[in-house]
Amino acid sequence: MSKPLNIGMIGYGFMGRAHSNGYRRVGNFFDLAYHPVLKAVCARDAAKAKDFADRWGYESIETDWRKLVERKDIDAVDICVPNNLHKEISIACANAGKMVLCEKPLSMNVAEGEEMCEAVEKAGVPNMVWYNYRRVPAVTLAKKLIEEGRLGRIFHYRALFLQDWTISTDLPQGGQGLWRLDAAASGSGVTGDLLAHCIDTAIWLNGTIDTVSAMTETFVKERTHNLTGKVEKVGIDDACAFLARFKNGSLATFESTRYARGHKALYTFEINGEKASIKWDLHDLHRLEYFDHRDEGKLRGWRSIHVTDNGGEHPYMDKWWVPGLQIGYEHSFVHQVADFLDGLGKGVPAEPTFRSALETQKVCDAVLASAASGAWVNV
Amino acid sequence: MSKPLNIGMIGYGFMGRAHSNGYRRVGNFFDLAYHPVLKAVCARDAAKAKDFADRWGYESIETDWRKLVERKDIDAVDICVPNNLHKEISIACANAGKMVLCEKPLSMNVAEGEEMCEAVEKAGVPNMVWYNYRRVPAVTLAKKLIEEGRLGRIFHYRALFLQDWTISTDLPQGGQGLWRLDAAASGSGVTGDLLAHCIDTAIWLNGTIDTVSAMTETFVKERTHNLTGKVEKVGIDDACAFLARFKNGSLATFESTRYARGHKALYTFEINGEKASIKWDLHDLHRLEYFDHRDEGKLRGWRSIHVTDNGGEHPYMDKWWVPGLQIGYEHSFVHQVADFLDGLGKGVPAEPTFRSALETQKVCDAVLASAASGAWVNV
Amino acid sequence: MSKPLNIGMIGYGFMGRAHSNGYRRVGNFFDLAYHPVLKAVCARDAAKAKDFADRWGYESIETDWRKLVERKDIDAVDICVPNNLHKEISIACANAGKMVLCEKPLSMNVAEGEEMCEAVEKAGVPNMVWYNYRRVPAVTLAKKLIEEGRLGRIFHYRALFLQDWTISTDLPQGGQGLWRLDAAASGSGVTGDLLAHCIDTAIWLNGTIDTVSAMTETFVKERTHNLTGKVEKVGIDDACAFLARFKNGSLATFESTRYARGHKALYTFEINGEKASIKWDLHDLHRLEYFDHRDEGKLRGWRSIHVTDNGGEHPYMDKWWVPGLQIGYEHSFVHQVADFLDGLGKGVPAEPTFRSALETQKVCDAVLASAASGAWVNV
Amino acid sequence: MSKPLNIGMIGYGFMGRAHSNGYRRVGNFFDLAYHPVLKAVCARDAAKAKDFADRWGYESIETDWRKLVERKDIDAVDICVPNNLHKEISIACANAGKMVLCEKPLSMNVAEGEEMCEAVEKAGVPNMVWYNYRRVPAVTLAKKLIEEGRLGRIFHYRALFLQDWTISTDLPQGGQGLWRLDAAASGSGVTGDLLAHCIDTAIWLNGTIDTVSAMTETFVKERTHNLTGKVEKVGIDDACAFLARFKNGSLATFESTRYARGHKALYTFEINGEKASIKWDLHDLHRLEYFDHRDEGKLRGWRSIHVTDNGGEHPYMDKWWVPGLQIGYEHSFVHQVADFLDGLGKGVPAEPTFRSALETQKVCDAVLASAASGAWVNV
Repeated sequence: MSKPLNIGMIGYGFMGRAHSNGYRRVGNFFDLAYHPVLKAVCARDAAKAKDFADRWGYESIETDWRKLVERKDIDAVDICVPNNLHKEISIACANAGKMVLCEKPLSMNVAEGEEMCEAVEKAGVPNMVWYNYRRVPAVTLAKKLIEEGRLGRIFHYRALFLQDWTISTDLPQGGQGLWRLDAAASGSGVTGDLLAHCIDTAIWLNGTIDTVSAMTETFVKERTHNLTGKVEKVGIDDACAFLARFKNGSLATFESTRYARGHKALYTFEINGEKASIKWDLHDLHRLEYFDHRDEGKLRGWRSIHVTDNGGEHPYMDKWWVPGLQIGYEHSFVHQVADFLDGLGKGVPAEPTFRSALETQKVCDAVLASAASGAWVNV
Repeated sequence: MSKPLNIGMIGYGFMGRAHSNGYRRVGNFFDLAYHPVLKAVCARDAAKAKDFADRWGYESIETDWRKLVERKDIDAVDICVPNNLHKEISIACANAGKMVLCEKPLSMNVAEGEEMCEAVEKAGVPNMVWYNYRRVPAVTLAKKLIEEGRLGRIFHYRALFLQDWTISTDLPQGGQGLWRLDAAASGSGVTGDLLAHCIDTAIWLNGTIDTVSAMTETFVKERTHNLTGKVEKVGIDDACAFLARFKNGSLATFESTRYARGHKALYTFEINGEKASIKWDLHDLHRLEYFDHRDEGKLRGWRSIHVTDNGGEHPYMDKWWVPGLQIGYEHSFVHQVADFLDGLGKGVPAEPTFRSALETQKVCDAVLASAASGAWVNV
Repeated sequence: MSKPLNIGMIGYGFMGRAHSNGYRRVGNFFDLAYHPVLKAVCARDAAKAKDFADRWGYESIETDWRKLVERKDIDAVDICVPNNLHKEISIACANAGKMVLCEKPLSMNVAEGEEMCEAVEKAGVPNMVWYNYRRVPAVTLAKKLIEEGRLGRIFHYRALFLQDWTISTDLPQGGQGLWRLDAAASGSGVTGDLLAHCIDTAIWLNGTIDTVSAMTETFVKERTHNLTGKVEKVGIDDACAFLARFKNGSLATFESTRYARGHKALYTFEINGEKASIKWDLHDLHRLEYFDHRDEGKLRGWRSIHVTDNGGEHPYMDKWWVPGLQIGYEHSFVHQVADFLDGLGKGVPAEPTFRSALETQKVCDAVLASAASGAWVNV
Repeated sequence: MSKPLNIGMIGYGFMGRAHSNGYRRVGNFFDLAYHPVLKAVCARDAAKAKDFADRWGYESIETDWRKLVERKDIDAVDICVPNNLHKEISIACANAGKMVLCEKPLSMNVAEGEEMCEAVEKAGVPNMVWYNYRRVPAVTLAKKLIEEGRLGRIFHYRALFLQDWTISTDLPQGGQGLWRLDAAASGSGVTGDLLAHCIDTAIWLNGTIDTVSAMTETFVKERTHNLTGKVEKVGIDDACAFLARFKNGSLATFESTRYARGHKALYTFEINGEKASIKWDLHDLHRLEYFDHRDEGKLRGWRSIHVTDNGGEHPYMDKWWVPGLQIGYEHSFVHQVADFLDGLGKGVPAEPTFRSALETQKVCDAVLASAASGAWVNV
């Protein structure tokens, strides 16, 4: 019989919804040792917390996250608040003996992240960071292909994360929904928000990043701040691009921006190996592009693999519908919940743990340092 | 406050799962006058019914559909069983005053369908058939564009529904999971299973079909029958293609097969109008292709519209995530549940009703008659 | 040493240019037993003939095709005039002992075509019809794959040829550049102009077509006639679609129109076999799409083969540039000239001969007969 | 009447063929004040020169380029030899009063290029460098859109040039066909060979590049040298990536490699502006992708413009076939010849001149300097 795992959710925004959906759906599709019970949601505004609880089926609400963390009936806390609160809440959870599931990026910087790692490790509580794209089936398949050695020696890695939602100078910064534009709440702009995803995937697929050379730009220098009502200097990076060298000898380019007209969430990566190459694109996330040099010469071509075949070996897809029918963005969170619960049952940590996610934080810090100094920076 | 609508589900296969998922998720994303309550699921095998009920949260089980239909605590019955049972159950539901949500195709033939329409209309019960593809946002957007007159006079309609799962001669027919190959249970092969979808969409988008000329083929003539254990003649059509003329003067080609290697569920349609054209493909269901001749000459091209923008006017998408993040196949059922419940609240029937779905049945019958006779047949 | 082959060209329109380009370029890229010498071009208007001769390097002009045919210094006559003149000129050429290279379609109908075949065969002169798409490298590669048995048993063939240039009702019919809209000059509309291409390729790739059921439509019923200046009834088919059965048991759909907004010359075909499938599209003619079911399960996908690799075995491509650099439409004619000259050197007829092209004519006639009668017609 | 322009070609490799094809074809399609006359080809090996002359119609041969440069009957010299000979020959041509058409890159480095510019400017001879991709119609259309202000303020530029032909360690360096791997002949690897193309296009489309940060790598450190027969250190860059800032404030990433398995000649660029974005890809060079934010919200999407419409305003395409029929790689050279001859007639230099091409050389030098030093380098 499946055991209950009582969840306490802090936050109710975009990620609060995505995670809640993951908890509610996982049991309909996966057979696991644990099933999530939505025990409580916490938000400073009681009315908003109540609305969210009603919609998603949380049994109770809290308006102070410290109260939630102290509750005896909570096993695991899910942190879906701005980055500047990750450290304090995570450490409180660890100290209270709660499991912690923290939205990415782990922290505002490496120093904070290191403290967080130490706290959860000292407390011995299961912990995980929501780098959800690892669980898109096409991305998981890419990982599998690399582990099977199909690509051979890797020469190149390139990743983009392109959006266009902050081009308007009228957009304010700060507060509900817009804290990602406020450096005090977010720590950085596209580096922590978008490139962190690219970096997490890259390290997972291609190993350690050794050194980087970066540039950043803030195209719109001032925006009205929602919390002060005044026009204030924008402190985040609107765009960031960097060169990198991996430990395995491969070269990389990474770029992210919120000023790429025509792209809403175009996260793409491509890996070129001696024997084969792969490409993926979040805008068509159910496809993996694959080129295998070992194919017969006249028939070589990029294969567009529709990763929906539950008769085959496509990761996670045997849980869903029938071949040819695609799943979407939200399923990556269902898969991450499933893997977390499965790991709990087996006593194996679900990746990325805080410690694993700290590696991404190190690269982010190096990137921002390089952009500031103009020099190559070792991670 | 939202009112409960008690659902009784008959069947627990692929469609039983897809509909149950629709009921369970709708309230997390849509604000509606009614919310579904999963009251009971019915299956002949009690253990299987119990498993299904546990997984999806049905409160109780039945092993005889007649008992389910008679239960006072059921408001609406969802029929997810083979086609040869649609008529009897639907009529029993109507007679018992229950709303009926019937999986497509409506019936084994027009005569059955007519009886079913009369029963639900006489009883005055809300009724609907699960032609779910109307609620894929890109398809709903196509409907909107046509209604706005953007295509002008229509010249051409073409639709395909291509699969490849029955090519192996080792595949048996009949029984659980394979009743679609058994003419006694399904009535027809690809015509009722796949072309019915194409026809429903076509009538919705382009109006009445007047006349057809069809051919069918059964590539594998005999298969082992799961229920008898014997090799038996295959009675269904493995492939069907037909020419058609619409009342509006446009020409059409339709084709479906389960022998198109490389395609799992490739439902596509294209409409060519005097001013603009549109294309859609289930394998990338979150995109609509659009060509507008009124665009400036040198910049004319097919636009690949990523139908995920909740800041815009993309149907249903304001309920989900953020622009650029795609949904999947299953969401079409959530939308259909939402529209059914919304219609209940407003007293407006959700389409397609049994009567609307009967139009598709008429075309299917005409197609099969034409294939048999070799002559053009009026619908 | 390469021997000269003296060419006499009749006509100076679109095809006159395409063929002339083929003659002029072939020797720069192919090593052949013969090289074309552009001896004379013939047109009724001497000034236009002179202009054309100057531009393309023809040594002389004629204004009466009979004179050209009689000239001793002409070895081969290329017929690039409207369809209603093909028979008379071809037979005159044969009688004069000239080789004949005739633009497609072969003739106005089967009866004419039969006469033409008899004439060239009786005279024993090399003859060829310009179904140029056989020599697009991706199409030739498709042929090769089929001959190697890679597709296995064929289930389906589908072809489209979609254009949009005659949608405007202001477009006149008849005369220079518009004779394709004039039934007296063309014999038919899209059937002979576009479907003839589709049918030629289909027979080449998939064998004999046995029987067809067709429909045609003329969307614009009257147009001003350039030769009379009056508004006259349009005699051609603006659109034509047909179902077909091949001798090998496969089913087919064919469709062509000049009313498909957004498509300029979208000739596509797809073939589904038991083991593999292929697709091709003239709008990206340098690519072949290929799906092989024998690929490892999780890696199956449609391959987009960039047919430009001269290091490999891509047909004709070793003659051109380096891998990755595409050729275009016109090269199909260069290849056809090369194959004709190569065949001359080896004493092997280049396909399609008049006799081969007559097979396409038979299907066209059956299609038009079926559209007129509403019945299936055997070819 | 068109005047003759006597061409002397030095070299007979890939570029010698591509340029010769340009000269031979231009008159069939363009009406110009001058027509090229293929007067002589020069190669050290007389037999090879003779073969080349026979194939392409050169009237005579030379085996010493100095003799060719001195010939009175030569108006313009085309330099298609390795980069280390560009300077000496160009200056000799200028001193002899010949026009010079030099293959790219202009020179081994900026110092050489400056000398070359001074020589041709002092002599007052027309001069041009073969950056042919400017004349791909889709690229020329991109330029036109930018000049019309359609993109608004530019935020991002990114370009790739990916190949995979040197992955094998068995490939030797040096000598005929492989001089591009020999630093002594080529000056650099992908930087001068491939990135130079990307940079030329970028400067043309987006203006001056101010500063760069680069990295290079040589994956295969030693290769057999064809000229010495010994295994020697590889001196070229196998891969190069760099970050850049343009004078107009936009950010850029550039990358090139010959180790990207699956790509033969994948030159792509994308430009993101405030109002619109464009993308292009050499593997499908007849298409331009365009996104316009001013399109109506629900209909926004990337347009795939098939740049083949001679009824429209697609650059150069009115000279070729009919809409929908694509041209290929080689046509970019025909267009460049046409523009050079047109410029001669009008007294307007065809771009890029030596002086314009020197700008690209400056960026290449800065890139290599940055890769060596690890610091940002101003151009």
